[in-house]
Amino acid sequence: MLRPTIDFLLYDWLQADTLPQRARFADHSRETFGSVLDAAERLAREKFAPFNRLVDTEEPRFDGEKVILPQATHEAWKAFGESGMLSAAQDYDIGGMQLPYLVETAANAFFAKASVGIGGSLLTVGNANLLMAHGNEAQRRVFALNEFSGRWSGTMCLSEPQAGSSLSDVATRAVPDGDNFESDALGPRYRLHGNKMWISAGEHELTENIIHLVLAKIPGPDGKLVPGTKGISLFVVPKKLVDAEGRLTGERNDVALAGLNHKCGWRGTTNTLLNFGEGRFKPAGRAGAVGYLVGRPGEGLRCMFHMMNEARIGVGLGAAMLGYAGYEASLDYARQRPQGRPITGAPSAPTSAPASGTPAFGKDAAAPQVPIIEHADVKRMLLAQKAYSEGALALCLYGARLVDEQHTGAPEAGAEAALLLEVLTPIIKSFPSQWCLEANSLAIQVHGGYGYTRDFPVEQYWRDNRLNMIHEGTHGIQALDLLGRKVVMQGGAGLKLLASRINATIERAGHVQGLAEFATQLGGAVQRLGAATKAAWATGEPAEALANATPYLQAFGHVVVAWIWLDVVLAAQAAEAPRRDGSLAACRYFFAYELPLVDAWLKVVSSREAVCREMLDEWF
Amino acid sequence: MLRPTIDFLLYDWLQADTLPQRARFADHSRETFGSVLDAAERLAREKFAPFNRLVDTEEPRFDGEKVILPQATHEAWKAFGESGMLSAAQDYDIGGMQLPYLVETAANAFFAKASVGIGGSLLTVGNANLLMAHGNEAQRRVFALNEFSGRWSGTMCLSEPQAGSSLSDVATRAVPDGDNFESDALGPRYRLHGNKMWISAGEHELTENIIHLVLAKIPGPDGKLVPGTKGISLFVVPKKLVDAEGRLTGERNDVALAGLNHKCGWRGTTNTLLNFGEGRFKPAGRAGAVGYLVGRPGEGLRCMFHMMNEARIGVGLGAAMLGYAGYEASLDYARQRPQGRPITGAPSAPTSAPASGTPAFGKDAAAPQVPIIEHADVKRMLLAQKAYSEGALALCLYGARLVDEQHTGAPEAGAEAALLLEVLTPIIKSFPSQWCLEANSLAIQVHGGYGYTRDFPVEQYWRDNRLNMIHEGTHGIQALDLLGRKVVMQGGAGLKLLASRINATIERAGHVQGLAEFATQLGGAVQRLGAATKAAWATGEPAEALANATPYLQAFGHVVVAWIWLDVVLAAQAAEAPRRDGSLAACRYFFAYELPLVDAWLKVVSSREAVCREMLDEWF
Repeated sequence: MLRPTIDFLLYDWLQADTLPQRARFADHSRETFGSVLDAAERLAREKFAPFNRLVDTEEPRFDGEKVILPQATHEAWKAFGESGMLSAAQDYDIGGMQLPYLVETAANAFFAKASVGIGGSLLTVGNANLLMAHGNEAQRRVFALNEFSGRWSGTMCLSEPQAGSSLSDVATRAVPDGDNFESDALGPRYRLHGNKMWISAGEHELTENIIHLVLAKIPGPDGKLVPGTKGISLFVVPKKLVDAEGRLTGERNDVALAGLNHKCGWRGTTNTLLNFGEGRFKPAGRAGAVGYLVGRPGEGLRCMFHMMNEARIGVGLGAAMLGYAGYEASLDYARQRPQGRPITGAPSAPTSAPASGTPAFGKDAAAPQVPIIEHADVKRMLLAQKAYSEGALALCLYGARLVDEQHTGAPEAGAEAALLLEVLTPIIKSFPSQWCLEANSLAIQVHGGYGYTRDFPVEQYWRDNRLNMIHEGTHGIQALDLLGRKVVMQGGAGLKLLASRINATIERAGHVQGLAEFATQLGGAVQRLGAATKAAWATGEPAEALANATPYLQAFGHVVVAWIWLDVVLAAQAAEAPRRDGSLAACRYFFAYELPLVDAWLKVVSSREAVCREMLDEWF
Repeated sequence: MLRPTIDFLLYDWLQADTLPQRARFADHSRETFGSVLDAAERLAREKFAPFNRLVDTEEPRFDGEKVILPQATHEAWKAFGESGMLSAAQDYDIGGMQLPYLVETAANAFFAKASVGIGGSLLTVGNANLLMAHGNEAQRRVFALNEFSGRWSGTMCLSEPQAGSSLSDVATRAVPDGDNFESDALGPRYRLHGNKMWISAGEHELTENIIHLVLAKIPGPDGKLVPGTKGISLFVVPKKLVDAEGRLTGERNDVALAGLNHKCGWRGTTNTLLNFGEGRFKPAGRAGAVGYLVGRPGEGLRCMFHMMNEARIGVGLGAAMLGYAGYEASLDYARQRPQGRPITGAPSAPTSAPASGTPAFGKDAAAPQVPIIEHADVKRMLLAQKAYSEGALALCLYGARLVDEQHTGAPEAGAEAALLLEVLTPIIKSFPSQWCLEANSLAIQVHGGYGYTRDFPVEQYWRDNRLNMIHEGTHGIQALDLLGRKVVMQGGAGLKLLASRINATIERAGHVQGLAEFATQLGGAVQRLGAATKAAWATGEPAEALANATPYLQAFGHVVVAWIWLDVVLAAQAAEAPRRDGSLAACRYFFAYELPLVDAWLKVVSSREAVCREMLDEWF
């Protein structure tokens, strides 16, 4: 079911087959894209999906020496590395496939759906991409290339126990490592001391080495750390030291596992507290973890955030695919499970005052039971899952297409794509995280009691998906980013651009029989969203505007996904009947049941409702 | 925090101190109620709360002979039985305390909050209450009394593997046990054959015996089972056979554990598949589990549903208390966790077009971090939890007060209370199940990454709470019950009665400074709810009306809880400042952020939106 949907979105909607017209993708064609998707689908089916429950029950554990993961995880990682997927988007001359990011993203969807917990490629690719953009020649060659090959893996070390979302409070210190610190072939060499929390894939034996990208502060001349985010620099810190040719020196760097986090879900991946420079190891006889500066001092956050849009698309896609997995599972269950009978006319008509307790509807008890998919409320739960998860998938692929446009489009189109992506990224991250979690809850509900047992996969999808509103910038952080930064930057240029794209869809839909009403409804919602944005900022007081940033984020997300659905339905007009009618039904569902929520959420935004920010501690 | 809230709701809101004016409660006073609550609070704190995580990690297991539960569970059950709580509401002459149901419910709140998984009293009390109402003298004396004393425990066996929510498909057979089957001292004796699924506390060694109440069908003269619910009878089936004096005969009845369900949460309680009469045991040398008819043949469902309102209040209360537990935990965390700084004016005003990526707000990075409770979005998440869980608790206590009114009020008031309870029961069950689950998700979110680990209690609350939308009638069943039965029965008398109660609150609030706006808003919502009810049934076609029963249920629930909050706030006018201001803030939150959702939900109800019921299988 997923493959035809992805093919439809790629080709019928996003015209991926026009990408090979661009020089970078000239060797590609729908055929080569198809082979990549075939391979990904097969690998995910054979090496990931069968072990998704296993990695949930056999949680990572530390035996005092090493972190133990199931053998299946080792095999999945090995196969994934060998498939070339890690460097799918890279240049040919470093062994890549020069695939569009769109196709890479589509291929990754199969792994996320098969086992979001096993798949640890996201961080490694993001890490290596960052080094390709900001590292020096040796860092690219030694670290990035060995990550793309699957020989080593990567992490992103941002949070600290005392500083989760608040990166300005990073307290990890990096001091120059000796007088000749600037002459190391791998970059200016520092010694790091500090603790990093929530580090996914921070310790394991899946790869020969682990390459940590670490945010830390270089003390000023007074020995103090610079407050705020401006003082943050970025370092590459390998678990095991390597020489300038990428050979292990045999010496262990001072990066020590301080603890494994025991999570509610997503248990296939280790999540760790790491100590840098605690003294367990003493590389070259001296204290501190060896780290090489990436980019310039003080530009750590800029380098890190360069990769953030793509990382957040990755989170959105993972959430969307968990939603989709639950949708498939519950659809399958609903088709097979006989239970109950169709609702028929009442034994007594409802207007004629039935006696106490008598229902106003009947059922023919002598008829055979029907599969539960025939009940309207079950169809409602399935349609909601379809609308959330397919809508989220389409949104993520749209975002990935913007990344390609940004990198390979004509200058003006590229700049537009970059701007639009800035505005949409908080939505691409937050909508799937919130609503595909809800989809997973509905998947449980469709299963009834069975869904609450570990004999069916849906409760795990739900637990796994709960992470996505937390990592890579919490839901609240996305909301601040959207209302406090993205919609106001450049005088609101991003918001205007998005509105013009939405209006183009509205314009097209307005001329299509059966879609005009959606066009009108969406047009009104966009107008009210714009008005609410203005009203939120009317006093120019950030504390007043941003107190309702989260309801704003939700309203914005629903408007965007309503637009995505309408645009998808336009593309589906020419598709075969089940695709056309199914897309239309999901769109109808979204406009009837979901889009009206926007007005409720915008109410508090527009009125700058103050009850939350005025609430006092002692009133709780 | 919970105790003062309960005291406020009991006395300042529900006037529990007037109950001792009634003959049944004449020996009671606020003082005796207080002693019961003190004892419950202490017992819950000492014997339940400390073991809540333990019962999650040490799931019940079957060693081939017996079901193994943690020692702590045995001790908690023993202490609970000895406390007299099991018979709190019973007559003095059978060892009860003649407590109002309201006070019993309030006392149970402490256990539900401490460990919803350990606490298994609900089913035992419900089982014994049912036998007191419908059993014969011997059944009451032998089974019910030994359950009230804590010597034995009880279950409710309704569902079967092929018939979950669809009770008309019950296939368990009960045939008369010999020619003299009607002369057994314990009631007409039958032999049962069948399988029962989802039986909570269906097998364990916590008590000397387990008393199953089992729905089964007695075959007609043709040997066939009667289709539909009319053919269902009720039987009491002890795990171990007993004589007419309640002594174990030493013979095992043929009730065999076929499997333990492995659940996502709520792991302190066994949930079982039981086989009746599979032949593992042969009581008196014959096949079939021995069961004694309760009430008359064919009246099984009527007897069972007699207890359903109270069982559903119990589920609602459990959900509310899980919500409350997460609220307390996240409030505590938010007060202690320093992170980030207050939002200040922008570095550049938002209207002056900040450069790309520059936020329209600032933070003083040199200032110390503040506890996260000072951030508006965290306060929003805490206020939502307070509004959901305290609102749900108040709703459940209101329902419990109606039970008392039904049983001890003057005839007319009692009849009114019974009618109102019929209408409110689906809300008392569904609102807490849905929204206190959402509260638990917010509790995780307040904790950030920590909330997703098993080092903090909130992820377990969230997993535990997910059951409540499923058991004791799924969410969808509650919706059908409300829209298909409760609001139309007796010509809509229940709905009219509820509206008159709500309007009385509106009338009072309309005259209070600061509350008039809420009164107006609620009045409009009630009117639109009434209009939507009519519109849903306008065609008289149950299939059209009921396709949107779930959105209707949600809208109805939000209107009811808005009313509850406004009524609570009226009572809080005279309370001390934090209670008064805190209640008002929660009410403001609910009216500003939640009540507007009602219109979105009612839209599909009023228009009898057909997209769900018209959806075809092949379009998914």
